Amino acid sequence: MALPRLLVRALHRAAAAAAPAAPDFNSFVTRTNTCGELRAAHVGQKVTLYGWVQYQRQGLFLVLRDFQGLTQVIIPQDEAHSHVKELLSNAPLESVVRVTGTVSPRPQGQENPKMPTGDIEVKAETAEILNSCKKLPFEIKDFIKKSEALRMQYRYLDLRSSRLQWALRLRSRVVMRMREYLCNLHGFVDVETPTLFKRTPGGAKEFLVPSREAGKFYSLPQSPQQFKQLLMVGGLDRYFQVARCYRDEGSRPDRQPEFTQIVDVSEVLRGSNIHFVQNALSYPHGSIRAICIPQGVRYLTNKDLGSLKESAKSQFNQEIMEIICRPDGSLKSLLTKFLSEKEQSELIQALNMQEGDVVLLAAGEHKQVCSALGALRLLSANLLEAAGLALRDPTAFHFLWVVDFPLFLPKAENPTELESAHHPFTAPHPSDVSLLYSDPTKVRSQHYDLVLNGNEVGGGSIRIHSAEQQRFVLEKVLKEDSEVLSHLIEALEFGAPPHGGIALGLDRLISLIVDAPSIRDVIAFPKSFRGRDLMGNAPDYVTPEELEPYHIQVSWPLEEKEAKKN
Amino acid sequence: MALPRLLVRALHRAAAAAAPAAPDFNSFVTRTNTCGELRAAHVGQKVTLYGWVQYQRQGLFLVLRDFQGLTQVIIPQDEAHSHVKELLSNAPLESVVRVTGTVSPRPQGQENPKMPTGDIEVKAETAEILNSCKKLPFEIKDFIKKSEALRMQYRYLDLRSSRLQWALRLRSRVVMRMREYLCNLHGFVDVETPTLFKRTPGGAKEFLVPSREAGKFYSLPQSPQQFKQLLMVGGLDRYFQVARCYRDEGSRPDRQPEFTQIVDVSEVLRGSNIHFVQNALSYPHGSIRAICIPQGVRYLTNKDLGSLKESAKSQFNQEIMEIICRPDGSLKSLLTKFLSEKEQSELIQALNMQEGDVVLLAAGEHKQVCSALGALRLLSANLLEAAGLALRDPTAFHFLWVVDFPLFLPKAENPTELESAHHPFTAPHPSDVSLLYSDPTKVRSQHYDLVLNGNEVGGGSIRIHSAEQQRFVLEKVLKEDSEVLSHLIEALEFGAPPHGGIALGLDRLISLIVDAPSIRDVIAFPKSFRGRDLMGNAPDYVTPEELEPYHIQVSWPLEEKEAKKN
Repeated sequence: MALPRLLVRALHRAAAAAAPAAPDFNSFVTRTNTCGELRAAHVGQKVTLYGWVQYQRQGLFLVLRDFQGLTQVIIPQDEAHSHVKELLSNAPLESVVRVTGTVSPRPQGQENPKMPTGDIEVKAETAEILNSCKKLPFEIKDFIKKSEALRMQYRYLDLRSSRLQWALRLRSRVVMRMREYLCNLHGFVDVETPTLFKRTPGGAKEFLVPSREAGKFYSLPQSPQQFKQLLMVGGLDRYFQVARCYRDEGSRPDRQPEFTQIVDVSEVLRGSNIHFVQNALSYPHGSIRAICIPQGVRYLTNKDLGSLKESAKSQFNQEIMEIICRPDGSLKSLLTKFLSEKEQSELIQALNMQEGDVVLLAAGEHKQVCSALGALRLLSANLLEAAGLALRDPTAFHFLWVVDFPLFLPKAENPTELESAHHPFTAPHPSDVSLLYSDPTKVRSQHYDLVLNGNEVGGGSIRIHSAEQQRFVLEKVLKEDSEVLSHLIEALEFGAPPHGGIALGLDRLISLIVDAPSIRDVIAFPKSFRGRDLMGNAPDYVTPEELEPYHIQVSWPLEEKEAKKN
Repeated sequence: MALPRLLVRALHRAAAAAAPAAPDFNSFVTRTNTCGELRAAHVGQKVTLYGWVQYQRQGLFLVLRDFQGLTQVIIPQDEAHSHVKELLSNAPLESVVRVTGTVSPRPQGQENPKMPTGDIEVKAETAEILNSCKKLPFEIKDFIKKSEALRMQYRYLDLRSSRLQWALRLRSRVVMRMREYLCNLHGFVDVETPTLFKRTPGGAKEFLVPSREAGKFYSLPQSPQQFKQLLMVGGLDRYFQVARCYRDEGSRPDRQPEFTQIVDVSEVLRGSNIHFVQNALSYPHGSIRAICIPQGVRYLTNKDLGSLKESAKSQFNQEIMEIICRPDGSLKSLLTKFLSEKEQSELIQALNMQEGDVVLLAAGEHKQVCSALGALRLLSANLLEAAGLALRDPTAFHFLWVVDFPLFLPKAENPTELESAHHPFTAPHPSDVSLLYSDPTKVRSQHYDLVLNGNEVGGGSIRIHSAEQQRFVLEKVLKEDSEVLSHLIEALEFGAPPHGGIALGLDRLISLIVDAPSIRDVIAFPKSFRGRDLMGNAPDYVTPEELEPYHIQVSWPLEEKEAKKN
C-alpha cells in the first residue's frame, strides 16, 4: 500500500511547503506595481497602477483594486490637474483605471494598520479610464447575499470577490505543488488521455457525442480508467493526469461515506415488539443504528430536527426516529411506550446518552441506514456550528484510509446475482484470491478510499493485471459479456505489469482546504445543480440543420409535439 | 506586444533550462534501482530490478528493460539455482519479471560502451514472473515499420518503444517547465474552464452533446475563448490553461501558413497569351506565383513531382505547372511555347533559376495559390531530405511572428459581405480604429501568429474590450445577430480590462521539438485521421434505449433504412 501513502504526503507537503520566491507580477505589463505592493519604503517613487475603482469619495480620494490588493489614490484638487480630478471623480465604481503618481506617506494618524498598503497613498498626477463600468446589478461585496442563480448569471462579477479570487488562486498553487511533487521529485509523467471514447459497459451516466457516421456515438468517459491501465501496459509508469471527468447525473447520495461513528442498537431492540424494528431486522442486511447529538436539546430547534428528518426522507427514503434525554434522565420518544425500563436503560447505556442529548435512530437495510445517518451526522454538525458550537477545527486536516471493501455486492434488484462494488477491474485482496473461485461474496477488494475530515476525497485500487483473472471476473462472477472490453483484456495478455492508482476529487479536496461550503466556490464557471450554465444559457436548442451531419433528430415528448402542432 | 514575447522566452527557457535535480524513481516501489541506473560504482550491491524481458539468449543471459534503460542479467547455471534458470530461460519476450541479484563487473573486454549500464551485469539469485506475455503480433522494435492501423490497434505495445517513451516523457517535462515559468516565476493562475458549453455562433465544427432536456444540446467548445475573456473581466488576470480543444473536422488545408517565400510572377506573365494565366488574373484577387526547387532535377523523381501536383490538386483544388531548367539553361515546360524569349528570360531572372532547378507554378485566386504553394514547399523539402539532401537543421529553432493580418475578409460565397479573418472578438489595430467605421476592409487586426521553422505553432490576439465596439463589429460590419453573445457583450460593459492572449498548439509544438513526423507521435492515444479510435473502436453504435434519456433518435440514411427493412 505504498501508493496511497504517497498522496497524503503530497497533500501534507503542499500545505507545509515553504512559499517559493514570490513571482514577478509586473513582468510583461506597463504597470510599475500591483495595487497590493506599495509600502513606506516606496515613498517618493513615481508609480503607475492599473485597477478597478473599488470606492470613491467626494472627488477627494479613491481606492484602486487589483488581484493583489488595494491602494488609496489621492485625487488632485489644484487647477492644473482639473482634468484628472474630473475624470477620477466621475469614474463609475468597477471602472478600469490607470493612475500615475507619487507614493506619499499618509498624514499622521490616518494610517490604516489593517491594510497592507495602509501606510501610504498615491498622489495622482495623470489618469486614464480604460473601460467605464455601467451600473452594477449589485455591489461586489453584496454578491454573496444574493441568489445562487443571480450570482451564476453574473459569475464574472462574483469572480472579482476576494473570496473567489483567493480560492481559485490557491487551487492553482496547490495543483502546481502536486505537479512539482509528482514530476520533479518522483519522476511521474503527465499524460493526456482522450475524452472522446467509446461507451463503457454500464456507463449509463456517460454523456454521448454523436459522430458523423450514422448511428455511431462517442462517449465522454467518467474517468480515464481504461487509458490509465493501457499506459501501464505501455510502460508509461508513474503516470498522472489532472483529468476532466464527465458524469451525467445529479449528486449520488448513496455514495456518501459509510464510516460514520454510529452505534448499532439492533441487539438492544431485537427483543422489542416494535413493528418497524422487526420489519427492519427481517431484511437480509437489516440493521438498526443511531447517532447521538450531545446537547442537541439546547442547540437544535424543532425546525432543525424536522429538516434533518426531512433530509433523510428525501435523500435516502429513510424514516428517522428521534429520542430525547430529558433533564431528569428519562427518555422522550414515540418509542418509549414500546420499550421496557430495562430496554430503555440499555439504550441509554449503548448510546452513552447524557441529559439534553438527542438521538437519531434509523432502522432498515444496512447500507441505506448507514448512508442516511452518515449524512445526518454531517448535517447535524453544520447545524450545531451554525448555533455557535465550535465542533470542528477548520485548520485541522484529519485523513483516514478506508480499506477492505467487499469486491462484489449482491445486486439490489436481484440479490442472487453479483455486481462489482466499485468496478470490474479492481483486484481481489491477495489473501482472498482463492475465494474468488469458491465464494466470491467473501472476497475483499484492493480498493481504498481516502477520507479527509469525514469527506471522501479520493479513491483507487490495485487493478487486475492477469487477463485470465479479469476474464473470470467478467464472465463467471459478473456474467457480463467481456467482448466490449476485449481490447483491454488483450492488452493484459501482453506483459501488463502489476499496477494500481488513485484519483483525488480535486474540487472536493480544494473546497475542504479553503473551507468552502460548496465545490462551486472552487470552480471558476460551475454548472447549476441541474447541469445548466446560467450565464451562457447552456444547454440550448439547435436547429435540425445542425443535427443533420450527425444523423440524429429530436424525439419530442408527446405533449410538446402536440403543443407544436396546435 | 509584450505578451507574444513571453511565450518565446518561455520556450527558450524550457529548452535551455538546466536539468533539475534528478527525480527519485525508486520511491514508493519495491525495486532498489531502475534498469538504467546501475554503474561500476554499484558493483557488489544486492539489487532488485523489475522490467520487461527485452532479449534472452540460450538460457545464459537476458536484457531487462524499463522506462529508464536496459540492464544485462546473467542467468545462474548452477544446480542450486536451477529453478531460477528454468524460469528466466522460459519467460517469453516482453514478460514482466522481477530479478534480485548482485551487481558484478562485466568480464574484461565484454563491456559495452554504447550502453549506459554497459560496465556491469546483474548475477540473478532469485526471480519471479509477474506476468507472462503471449506471442506479440510484432517485435516492439519492428512496430515502426508496420501499418498505421496496426500500430494504433496495439498502441499500448507501440508505447513501449523508446521513440514514443522519449517523446511523451519529454512532452510532460516541457509542459512542466512552461507551468513553472508561468506560475512560479510570473504569477499566472491555472484555471479550468468548462468543456460543456453552448454552441458558438458559426461553430459549425463543434461536437454536440445531447442533454436530458428534450431538444437541448451542449457543445464541446473548440477553445475556451469566451471563458478566457470572462476570466479577464472577473479579475483573474494572468490566466493560463493547458486546455482541451475539440474540433470536429479533418485537417484544414486552408489554414496552412501563408508566408511562403514565393515569388509573384504575375507581372512577368501578364502580357502572355496563355489562357489559364489570363483566367487567373481576371479574379479580383488573382495571382500567379511560383516556388523554385534548387537542383530538383537531381533529387526529385517524376513520381515525386507527380505526387506534389496530385497533392495540390486533392488538397487545394489547385493545378500546378512545372518548369524545368535544362543543363543548357533552356526551359522545359508546357508553358514555353506560349512565352517569348524575353518572357522566358524574365521568368528565369525573377525566379533566379539555375540549371537543374525545378519550378512549380500556380495560377488562380491569391489565397488558394499561396496555400497550395506553401504546402508544396514543405512537401518538397520532405522529399529532398528523403533523397539525402540536408536542408533543415533539426536542432535549429527559428521563430517568426506574423502580424498585421486584415481584420475582415470578403466572404468567399459573396464578396460584398465581410467575415472575420479570425474571429469577431479580435481588436482592430490602434492606428486603424477610425477605418472601422469608414472602410473596414482596410483595418489591420491585433492578431498575431507564432511560426516555428515554417509551421504555425500558435496564435492569439488582443481582444475588443469595449462593448460598443464589439456590438458595432458584430451588427454593423458582420451583420450578425449579437443576441447569442449577449452574455459576453454585457460582461464587457462591467469594467472589462484591456486584454489579450495567445494559444500554442501543444501537439504541433512538441512534435517540432522532438522532430516527429506527425503529431500522433507525441499523443499517447491519437485518433486516426477520420477521428476513429482503432484500439477501442470508437465511435460505436448505441442502443435506442440508451438514446432515450437524451430525446434523440438516429436518422438512418435511406439506403441503410432500406437494408434494415429487407
